[in-house]
Amino acid sequence: MRLSNQRFIGLDGGGSKTYCVIGDGEGRLTFLSRGSSSNMKSKPWTEVRKVLSESIMECWDNGREEESELNTVFLGMAGSDRPEDRERIGCFLEELLPSNREFVVRSDALSAMASGTWGEPGIILIAGTGSIATSYNPATDEYHRVGGWGYVLGDEGSGYQIGRSGLISMLHQFDGRGPYTAITEKVLRQWKMDNASQLITYVYENEELRKTVAEAARAVLDSAAEGDQVANRIIDEAIGELILLVETLAGKGSRREERSPLVIAGGLFDSETFFSRFRERAAERLAGFDPVRPEFPPVIGSYILALRRADIAITLQVRQRLAESWNALRGQIKE
Amino acid sequence: MRLSNQRFIGLDGGGSKTYCVIGDGEGRLTFLSRGSSSNMKSKPWTEVRKVLSESIMECWDNGREEESELNTVFLGMAGSDRPEDRERIGCFLEELLPSNREFVVRSDALSAMASGTWGEPGIILIAGTGSIATSYNPATDEYHRVGGWGYVLGDEGSGYQIGRSGLISMLHQFDGRGPYTAITEKVLRQWKMDNASQLITYVYENEELRKTVAEAARAVLDSAAEGDQVANRIIDEAIGELILLVETLAGKGSRREERSPLVIAGGLFDSETFFSRFRERAAERLAGFDPVRPEFPPVIGSYILALRRADIAITLQVRQRLAESWNALRGQIKE
Repeated sequence: MRLSNQRFIGLDGGGSKTYCVIGDGEGRLTFLSRGSSSNMKSKPWTEVRKVLSESIMECWDNGREEESELNTVFLGMAGSDRPEDRERIGCFLEELLPSNREFVVRSDALSAMASGTWGEPGIILIAGTGSIATSYNPATDEYHRVGGWGYVLGDEGSGYQIGRSGLISMLHQFDGRGPYTAITEKVLRQWKMDNASQLITYVYENEELRKTVAEAARAVLDSAAEGDQVANRIIDEAIGELILLVETLAGKGSRREERSPLVIAGGLFDSETFFSRFRERAAERLAGFDPVRPEFPPVIGSYILALRRADIAITLQVRQRLAESWNALRGQIKE
Repeated sequence: MRLSNQRFIGLDGGGSKTYCVIGDGEGRLTFLSRGSSSNMKSKPWTEVRKVLSESIMECWDNGREEESELNTVFLGMAGSDRPEDRERIGCFLEELLPSNREFVVRSDALSAMASGTWGEPGIILIAGTGSIATSYNPATDEYHRVGGWGYVLGDEGSGYQIGRSGLISMLHQFDGRGPYTAITEKVLRQWKMDNASQLITYVYENEELRKTVAEAARAVLDSAAEGDQVANRIIDEAIGELILLVETLAGKGSRREERSPLVIAGGLFDSETFFSRFRERAAERLAGFDPVRPEFPPVIGSYILALRRADIAITLQVRQRLAESWNALRGQIKE
């Protein structure tokens, strides 16, 4: 098998966008395509199918060369938890692409992890609007998860939970049940309101309740950075919850003894306040785990996992080629 | 003014039913009507209007006598918080009924309170699917509230919050993040599930998410009664939150020094476990408040408030007539 002739496709199908790359077996990426959301839980299958086929075919048509062969396609997809979903995608890919290739469908969280571990086993902690921690060993396909039970039953430590706690503190101050907090003024300013009771209509009549509540996390983070006690308690609790997700996960599965890389992703970590406090607490409570924010987007993780699936070692040379070719392609992602 | 010739109408417009009674100025009830929901927040105004006019006219046509006069109508209505809503109801009643009468529209919580205080000033604590505490002085119309900010931002100590905490504990056990709890088995049995991860589809794809989550409170209460530690912590916290609502309210308004009657209502207090534990904690933390469950439904509170509005004293004799005539009418409520 000549690796420079083989082609590998990695796809990241998320809630708002779908990215797809194609490259050879030695780390050279040759094309990047971009489509709309392909989350199977929030879009009808006919639409997801259309986005997938357009993204993949655009990559395949533009990124291969004469006489090159398709080897493996790795799709990291949001909302692909159920075996039925994966089978449906598999069948559709077999119609779409040259047959006898390997098609792998897994959660988009695993792609995000691989983009930080170069395809080595590891743990990913995601804290955006929601939260979840997942461990994955690409070699054995062993997978575990903790958390991620959604805004009503879980998502501890997420932007939604931080925002919700902030809004609740604000209403407790308003009611006289709780102390003063700087969160109040910040939320009122952010949402152009006169007083806390206006939250009710704004939040409950909002089509995107989850997103709206999570937006209030900004006010909590800013208040915490200024030393507000209520906000600091909320942030500390959230970080404690996220640490607990990782701790619990570290005790699961066969890799119990080893210290895995801990990849962190999601909008909350974009806040330097949050990231640095998380890192401090992780150093205390998660000895041996050094949280890293991946340099590459999840679509690169998918491509790396496609290579791993074909037993290709991600050598230093492969990494260098990958980084160089990605830098050449990434301009396209910004339109 | 001959009080036996005067007629007073009390209406309780709730989320599932509307009750209406008519009686004279001396405590004699003569008719009870029943209609569907008249919550202005969950039904279009044209429908609410139809339910109100049918309920009231049925009472007026059947409960008055020759030469009797309409004096006051008191409507306790769910979802009537905004002044615009009250004005709209007021205008419509003026068209419907003999003019120059007094029409009063207030929250249905105040009717529930009056049914327990015989129209004296007091506090009502409601803990059903949601929770809220309200104080009201019928003589001055002074009104305060604490809590009741809905399932996302408030409702502390409610059935929803207890159910939610129970389901979260169950998922923490499932994840390995939390200890064993008897809640798990009870919820799985109640909802005919094999394991906790099935909660996700069941809860999030349910049209009545709030009600569904609140149903899990039953499993928490049963587990607490059997000594389950996790369940007991949830129940203790919920009771603490409810006590805090009352404490905060007791510090508001002009009646700070006096000990008001504390009326309790809502489905949670139907549980003897919950009621007796609440009463114990109230005795410790709310000195002077002795929680009472009203003997009468809120529609009777509305009628009492109509009498109070006309400065009629609720003497022992009035109370006796009211209790007797209500016992004669209440059979109708059970069809």
